Amino acid sequence: MRIGFTKMHGLGNDFVVLDGRDAPLPVIDMRLASALADRRTGIGCDQLILLETSNVADFRMRIFNADGSEVGACGNATRAVGLLHGAPARIETGGGIVAASPVENGISVDMGEPRFAWEEIPLAYAMDTLSMPVGWDGLDAPVAVNVGNPHAVFFVADCDAVDLAAIGPEIEHDPLFPERVNVNVATVDARDAIRLHVWERGVGLTRACGTGACATAVAAMRRSLCDREATVTLPGGTLRIAWGNDDRILMTGPASESFRGIFDTDDYPPTA
Amino acid sequence: MRIGFTKMHGLGNDFVVLDGRDAPLPVIDMRLASALADRRTGIGCDQLILLETSNVADFRMRIFNADGSEVGACGNATRAVGLLHGAPARIETGGGIVAASPVENGISVDMGEPRFAWEEIPLAYAMDTLSMPVGWDGLDAPVAVNVGNPHAVFFVADCDAVDLAAIGPEIEHDPLFPERVNVNVATVDARDAIRLHVWERGVGLTRACGTGACATAVAAMRRSLCDREATVTLPGGTLRIAWGNDDRILMTGPASESFRGIFDTDDYPPTA
Repeated sequence: MRIGFTKMHGLGNDFVVLDGRDAPLPVIDMRLASALADRRTGIGCDQLILLETSNVADFRMRIFNADGSEVGACGNATRAVGLLHGAPARIETGGGIVAASPVENGISVDMGEPRFAWEEIPLAYAMDTLSMPVGWDGLDAPVAVNVGNPHAVFFVADCDAVDLAAIGPEIEHDPLFPERVNVNVATVDARDAIRLHVWERGVGLTRACGTGACATAVAAMRRSLCDREATVTLPGGTLRIAWGNDDRILMTGPASESFRGIFDTDDYPPTA
Repeated sequence: MRIGFTKMHGLGNDFVVLDGRDAPLPVIDMRLASALADRRTGIGCDQLILLETSNVADFRMRIFNADGSEVGACGNATRAVGLLHGAPARIETGGGIVAASPVENGISVDMGEPRFAWEEIPLAYAMDTLSMPVGWDGLDAPVAVNVGNPHAVFFVADCDAVDLAAIGPEIEHDPLFPERVNVNVATVDARDAIRLHVWERGVGLTRACGTGACATAVAAMRRSLCDREATVTLPGGTLRIAWGNDDRILMTGPASESFRGIFDTDDYPPTA
């Protein structure tokens, strides 16, 4: 079966998008997802995105890592899909309904309301989520926030100096986080400017994490380190995050189409 | 301008193939080649391959690394292009004319005659190329051979135990090799079986190098370590190398098409 796809990226976080809104897609199992994600013998991507019909929104977006695990929310993917759709859209995701609109300087995404209750992160037991009484090797007292997926946000004097590849896996898999956690290490440079590195749950160090930028901006705003609108600069580029009076997070940033293609399901997984 | 391409690989060494045999291609400069080769914001590949018309063969194949440098010969690329062509073909390359034919168990490529004269490798000055009187950190007395590009082949007790990523760059850039060199570290397991790791000039460690497999098999045969036909097993898979009585090297192995696509030159280099 021959399947068309669009290869896209948001700040270097790259996606193979399969559009099953008009015609049904074949079953994408873990073996196929993983084979398609391989950068040398497949198409290559961080995440595989399936667009499907929805009963509650304009369409549904499902996101799979190369290991076959499904992701609830991905801000970069939402911008990419918003660009592909080309018009304002309400999108059903595993993390809730989000809205995306093409704007002058990129794609704006309504990422919904952040959640701060310990059981909604989720954490293993009750504690203060604005300054968690825990620490790992000099990273202390993070903010916990859920923006469709769970985040721990650490504010440090210089986030570029933290060896996040070394400490990230330990925090991600700490039993304190029953659904694991995305690890954000951030430095507030001004009332409207944050620098950020993210260790993504199930992925590792990434050039840009949209939900991490949202979680970190909201965490800085809750701590009164920032005003309610700020840029978040990641290794892959910059996002603008606004936390509105309606409690919703608006993320604005770029997305790009890299190319379009067609693969044959008979060729996957490759035999050679 | 919208350009069609085929994404292919041979033992995990992957290529974006642009076919300019029937319709001319746009100028592929270093900036465009490098942007297309980017695995996150482009199409992603080890090498970009251009097919052009030829006055001396069925067609011409040009091979560019992601840094824009042009490669004379690439065995994996020749198998891939042979698969794409789908019939026996004589192909003009920077390393001479090669021939490729689809066979039952893959693609067979006539890689031409190896050269052993010191000035044809080339080396900086005259010396014995069957056992060069030089060494680097325990890697000693390599065989030098040119199979369209220059190779140094070291035979060791266990090639899996050599830290080729550490020593490869030093040998590649040694002034003894005025055009640099591909570094092969091999172990002969039987009269017809070789294990091999390759540090590729201008690329680094690769999963499979077709010319490295040819150079190494011929080196082992010259040293009487192997018979005239042997398998060479690389991290990415296995090739069969035969050195015929006509002095020509025949390499047989797999090649695959991963997908077909279309990109727009207006999108490269990406702005976001």
